[in-house]
Amino acid sequence: MFEAAELGHKLSKGEYKRIEPKLRADLLDAQYDLFKNGKFPVVALISGVRGAGKGETVRLLNEWMDPRHIHTHAFDTPSDEERERPPMWRFWRALPPKGRIGILFGSWYTAPIIDRVFKRASAKDLMLSIEEINHFERMLADEGALILKFWFHLSKKRQKKRLKQLESDPETSWRISDRDWDFFKLYDRFYRISEDMLRETSTRDAPWIVVEGSDPEYRAVTVGKTLLEAMRKRLAAPPERRVAKSQAAPMVRPVDRVHVLRRMNLNLKMERDEYKKRLEKFQRRLALITLNKKFPERNVVCVFEGMDAAGKGGAIRRITAALDPRLYHNIPVAAPTDEERAQPYLWRFWRHLPRKGRFTIYDRSWYGRVLVERIEGFCSEADWMRAYSEINDFEEQLARNGAIICKFWLQISKTEQFRRFKLREKTRFKRFKITPEDWRNREKWNGYEVAASDMIERTSTSFAPWTLIEANDKYHARAKVVGTVVRAIENALGKR
Amino acid sequence: MFEAAELGHKLSKGEYKRIEPKLRADLLDAQYDLFKNGKFPVVALISGVRGAGKGETVRLLNEWMDPRHIHTHAFDTPSDEERERPPMWRFWRALPPKGRIGILFGSWYTAPIIDRVFKRASAKDLMLSIEEINHFERMLADEGALILKFWFHLSKKRQKKRLKQLESDPETSWRISDRDWDFFKLYDRFYRISEDMLRETSTRDAPWIVVEGSDPEYRAVTVGKTLLEAMRKRLAAPPERRVAKSQAAPMVRPVDRVHVLRRMNLNLKMERDEYKKRLEKFQRRLALITLNKKFPERNVVCVFEGMDAAGKGGAIRRITAALDPRLYHNIPVAAPTDEERAQPYLWRFWRHLPRKGRFTIYDRSWYGRVLVERIEGFCSEADWMRAYSEINDFEEQLARNGAIICKFWLQISKTEQFRRFKLREKTRFKRFKITPEDWRNREKWNGYEVAASDMIERTSTSFAPWTLIEANDKYHARAKVVGTVVRAIENALGKR
Repeated sequence: MFEAAELGHKLSKGEYKRIEPKLRADLLDAQYDLFKNGKFPVVALISGVRGAGKGETVRLLNEWMDPRHIHTHAFDTPSDEERERPPMWRFWRALPPKGRIGILFGSWYTAPIIDRVFKRASAKDLMLSIEEINHFERMLADEGALILKFWFHLSKKRQKKRLKQLESDPETSWRISDRDWDFFKLYDRFYRISEDMLRETSTRDAPWIVVEGSDPEYRAVTVGKTLLEAMRKRLAAPPERRVAKSQAAPMVRPVDRVHVLRRMNLNLKMERDEYKKRLEKFQRRLALITLNKKFPERNVVCVFEGMDAAGKGGAIRRITAALDPRLYHNIPVAAPTDEERAQPYLWRFWRHLPRKGRFTIYDRSWYGRVLVERIEGFCSEADWMRAYSEINDFEEQLARNGAIICKFWLQISKTEQFRRFKLREKTRFKRFKITPEDWRNREKWNGYEVAASDMIERTSTSFAPWTLIEANDKYHARAKVVGTVVRAIENALGKR
Repeated sequence: MFEAAELGHKLSKGEYKRIEPKLRADLLDAQYDLFKNGKFPVVALISGVRGAGKGETVRLLNEWMDPRHIHTHAFDTPSDEERERPPMWRFWRALPPKGRIGILFGSWYTAPIIDRVFKRASAKDLMLSIEEINHFERMLADEGALILKFWFHLSKKRQKKRLKQLESDPETSWRISDRDWDFFKLYDRFYRISEDMLRETSTRDAPWIVVEGSDPEYRAVTVGKTLLEAMRKRLAAPPERRVAKSQAAPMVRPVDRVHVLRRMNLNLKMERDEYKKRLEKFQRRLALITLNKKFPERNVVCVFEGMDAAGKGGAIRRITAALDPRLYHNIPVAAPTDEERAQPYLWRFWRHLPRKGRFTIYDRSWYGRVLVERIEGFCSEADWMRAYSEINDFEEQLARNGAIICKFWLQISKTEQFRRFKLREKTRFKRFKITPEDWRNREKWNGYEVAASDMIERTSTSFAPWTLIEANDKYHARAKVVGTVVRAIENALGKR
């Protein structure tokens, strides 16, 4: 891929002077049209070899366009807050909102390449990274982001010359350290691995643009024109909504209409005395396990979904009652804020991810996409269809980062729901829990059951399994929830 | 203050059983009314001595009310992201939005008390902390927050007994460390200093409630009732808007109508050649100073305010052109997002504060409160009147944390503005810069001049001075801006 970027591409100063003013004005125009349009963000990655003019180009872009609407982020050593979350967390934090241009210096490519060059990662690790990156970028693209990945290249000879040149000039010599020469010694290995990486991650949605970095005028105009054309093209015509083949497989309803929820025995019951005994035991174990010396290395993510009035809140409180309030955060999921709406739908969940040693309890969650949003038509079919694999990717990242994930679907019968709705309407401090919305949702009962079954089938994984809770009887439901959480943590910490 | 909390207050279990169900239902009701009301947050501080039941009480509050709308935050060792910002940054991050209850375990009181007990801080330092805290809490209260500060107290004898008790029980012994006994040895000193602190910070807006911590039932009901009554009272009647005496001093217009802006010589000019030479020199010095080995310990905050079309954007770009794009963030200030509107007005600026070694450039700023918001009546007179001292407090915190603050007011004549508006309407890539809004603002020219003069007079401080920029001539204006920034940094780093 790099051969074409070793041809000694050049642009004369005269030519540059002729082109630059118009390019600049056009870019500024496009930037404002993007801002007014407000429907998608531009994510520009600036990567490549040392000395190839990455910094200079970014500076120029900020000069050409209105820097107030450009979000430039550089990724150095992760902060401790970043280190305690999955590696992608810092990039999610830096995503530009719709209508803005984000310039990312260094990116999700940096660590995988360097780790492989220095053999801290195996060839298989690299392949896994590539797969993850492709998933992530496809998600971004599907969410509407315009992704442009620039790779600044220099031939070995030119890089050597450039480093020497920077080193000998007293004004720039500080920029060159031993580390740069250490990297240069591995030029060939870097070349090979980067080339593999770029080839495997150059997709229709997120193409790599390799830019020869030796001539300042050439590289500036190349990047500027590429950016301009891509923005113009996207502003003129939004991309067609595609459903990836892997996702488009029709969901065949079982001909006998039996799905997993219908198989549940909703009559499971527990007597009050038995419940009290059990609950106390579980809560005690839960309190104790958080004191385990391995616990601060992990975190616990609990997800509660279920029919309205199925008892999510009550179950959650039986967990939190056992915990030091400093150890958990409760995230009730309601309508997104405007900052959240300007980002991919998973963004609002990423931002709340806990540091290590904490519980995060989501009362409703990212599964809203394949439940309420699917049923109410708040997003297109293509959107919720792709959500299954996006969610699996997300949860896999959490699990790999040490999260213990417990997902609960609380199921009640339609009759039981009716009884509870009526009760809520009558009870003083429960009346806030029942709204006309709830009655409307009830009419879509079957739709919710089908959506929930699809969800469970497609997102129950070894690292983040669903637990179905028979919730007609609150005692049974709560004991099962708390017991499941306790056992999941104990298992994960090797206590059983 | 603590004597009344050493009387052995008690509540019998029977009494508790009688009171609890109603208290609980009432609290839940009040919480939902707060949520629906959505006009103010509740900030509850939980402080006090070890073993006095702070954790148990917070757990109970979370059990009584809906934990989904309670934000519980504990403050341990600051993270590195927190350490690189002013000490209050971590508390701003944790403020609950309007309509929610925030429970803060540990707070802005913890460090000042401990530092004084261990003599890391002098008596004078403590007095300064107290003053800062009172300013901060008054600001919170003026922004509408309902503040309740609970101090859990135990007499020396009871604390000793409690610690021994916790230590001897195998289930709780892990909770007691040598550190607790070290603290206990200093009980008398803690007592004295805390008492001083509480007395000096118990204000009408943010009273301390001292709770005797020995009896679980007594302390739970005390906290619950206090919280309930305070919420009910506030929900029934919002506090009257007060203007503090110090702020209410009428602003007397000079009888000759001469204010600081009128004294500016807007005809100051610079020739193009001179400008080019100067700018290059300044930009070179700017680029160099960021390489100074002391620079990573500081940060630079630039604020740009001025009449429409005065050239703020152009001046900003002459600064950023000299900087590595990784070193700065540009914050264009437009309408607040809904998350920002649910917080005190300074919150949106706190959240963008840079880490060390960075520039943050605010294109318009917190001064909007005393400019556009004052003139358009977006906030009450009491609100913008108090903003002057709140802003001074804010900037003082920045400065004490190492920020080099440069604030610019760009002034043009009314004729020059007219010329620029017309030019913008004609120029292709400037037309986005001119809107009907701009023409409307122009009609309020005199109001803006008066507001700007008041602002400059009241917020130009030694640690954050205003620089007035005569901006009819762009060359003069830009050279002066960049020169001022360069010199401010060079001075701060001791390079001149």
